[in-house]
Amino acid sequence: MAILAEGRFARATAKTAIGVLRYAPYPVVAVIDSTRAGTDAWQHIGGRPGEDPALPVVASVAEAVERGAEVILIGTASAGGRIADADRPFLADALRRGLAVWNGLHERVLADPALAAAARAGRGAVRELREPPGDLPVGGHRRPRAGVTVVLTVGSDAAVGKMTVALEIAAALRRAGRTAAFVATGQTGIAIAGDGIAVDAVVADFIAGAAERMVCDAAEGSDWVLVEGQGSLAHPGFSGVTTGLLHGSAPDLMVLCHDASRHETKGYPTLPLRPLDELVRIHEEAARWSRPPDAPRAKVAAVALNTSGLDDRDAARAIFDAAALTGLPAADPIREGAGGADRLARALLDAGPSA
Amino acid sequence: MAILAEGRFARATAKTAIGVLRYAPYPVVAVIDSTRAGTDAWQHIGGRPGEDPALPVVASVAEAVERGAEVILIGTASAGGRIADADRPFLADALRRGLAVWNGLHERVLADPALAAAARAGRGAVRELREPPGDLPVGGHRRPRAGVTVVLTVGSDAAVGKMTVALEIAAALRRAGRTAAFVATGQTGIAIAGDGIAVDAVVADFIAGAAERMVCDAAEGSDWVLVEGQGSLAHPGFSGVTTGLLHGSAPDLMVLCHDASRHETKGYPTLPLRPLDELVRIHEEAARWSRPPDAPRAKVAAVALNTSGLDDRDAARAIFDAAALTGLPAADPIREGAGGADRLARALLDAGPSA
Repeated sequence: MAILAEGRFARATAKTAIGVLRYAPYPVVAVIDSTRAGTDAWQHIGGRPGEDPALPVVASVAEAVERGAEVILIGTASAGGRIADADRPFLADALRRGLAVWNGLHERVLADPALAAAARAGRGAVRELREPPGDLPVGGHRRPRAGVTVVLTVGSDAAVGKMTVALEIAAALRRAGRTAAFVATGQTGIAIAGDGIAVDAVVADFIAGAAERMVCDAAEGSDWVLVEGQGSLAHPGFSGVTTGLLHGSAPDLMVLCHDASRHETKGYPTLPLRPLDELVRIHEEAARWSRPPDAPRAKVAAVALNTSGLDDRDAARAIFDAAALTGLPAADPIREGAGGADRLARALLDAGPSA
Repeated sequence: MAILAEGRFARATAKTAIGVLRYAPYPVVAVIDSTRAGTDAWQHIGGRPGEDPALPVVASVAEAVERGAEVILIGTASAGGRIADADRPFLADALRRGLAVWNGLHERVLADPALAAAARAGRGAVRELREPPGDLPVGGHRRPRAGVTVVLTVGSDAAVGKMTVALEIAAALRRAGRTAAFVATGQTGIAIAGDGIAVDAVVADFIAGAAERMVCDAAEGSDWVLVEGQGSLAHPGFSGVTTGLLHGSAPDLMVLCHDASRHETKGYPTLPLRPLDELVRIHEEAARWSRPPDAPRAKVAAVALNTSGLDDRDAARAIFDAAALTGLPAADPIREGAGGADRLARALLDAGPSA
């Protein structure tokens, strides 16, 4: 695979790229961004020093093909979900060469007549990661999943690391000898896991139904199901998706995710993020709304911080403060490595119904 | 217009038909249901005695055309949104005759090859009431609407009368000398109002953005904007749509709607409805989540009851109890007629920012 991010390969815009680079089970051979060609991709997004092998940024699809690329993944996401105009010539080139294009944006690649013509000419194939199945049900807690613990990652905002936390905790639970499935609910998660439904792209009536189906399917093969969260209950644009996912997945436990260097909702400078203890309360409250009054209450069991924007000292302070404010175990599973994820997994094992 | 409801024209299944019969600005000439042919449509859904002129139920599209029908509205909604198989031969007949078909279900009429063939053969046209615009924004409270009071009808469940209450209050505010716009967010409201967006049918990321656009457009021409609510925050299938609509419309005031004869969530017998006072609290709480902490708080200002399932004595008791439990004015704007709607409008005028 090569990741396309023309003119925009940087930490703030490369959420999809970073996720795929970290977690995908297939090799990424290049990043395409002519404005950064000749550099190492990791220097733009912050790698794990000494662990990440160099990844070349190249200027063209041809150079990516020379390095073995067979798939081009559109590697930047934008609110509103349009394909960036800067990416279109590269996509046309890829499709004319017969490569596969993977797209996680709302806009469909073949809706652009020039790209459709290129795909016809070169037999390039498009995989729309956000294309929902056609037969989704309405949600309603109708399928049993006894004996399985479902965990949803929730957040103070969009793009704070909910997918990363779910993947890291699933890995930590496996290290602890449990079976753990990861349920992908967004385009990057789907690119990594190979399947899933982008719940922000389904017809709105079926958000909960899509989540419920994925969770119940995953519950058939695992003791633990880690569901990738989306958006935030407090997000003015995406809260509907978040609520549908919360009620559809009907978690037993939640992990609250937060970017410790963020203070306002991303893209909404006048909307401060709510304190972590209030976010814990809000999520536990909202989780109850669609459950019978006598159902076990879903608890937030841990706080996962993304401290990538802080230095070591501020990061340690942020983790300490989050634990003190919420009374919950807190960790940054990336900065702290496996030990951080293991601490979050331990909090879930201690809090879980099967504890 | 004729309303198609083959085999299913009854109070419980004819929500769309009842709404159109009560509020549409165009004449309905017949209901099509061969199993009830020869009867008066009002007897099946409960009319207002002495006010509603007889409306014939007929057995075929041909008979509806004889009475002047030019449009056939699919008049029953089902969870999941499929076109009933019993309706398909009637729709094919209508399309072959060159009539227009209006459809408010998720399933598209022309997705059925037989109906598409009939439309081609007879030049019948289809209007998909739930087809969303292609250019929706993400929500975010970015457009000003100063001096306008936005009211959202919210509910204890789906299908309790939120559209009816919004329409009745808009009419009552006009009687009180105010300008009041109705914002349609569902297929029946759109069939009545002539425009609107079915927020349950948009791509999930755009629920709030669709609501916000409609509300801000309506605010440009009216002092009051009455927004048709959808679903319920406590509904296991539809809460995502409800939350997105709540945050996107960002109401100044809410009216809590409830069917006084319903005790469990419709279709979910193990999920009791929450008490009205708790529902007031839940909605006021959730409305705050996506607003700045210093923004004025959205209040529930009144309770609108649907007492159609109760006798006079139980209805009066239910209205009294709702007011006592919530401390808010309560009324049934249908059973009590204009006086009931006027009482709800008065509560809004008293509570509004411009009070």
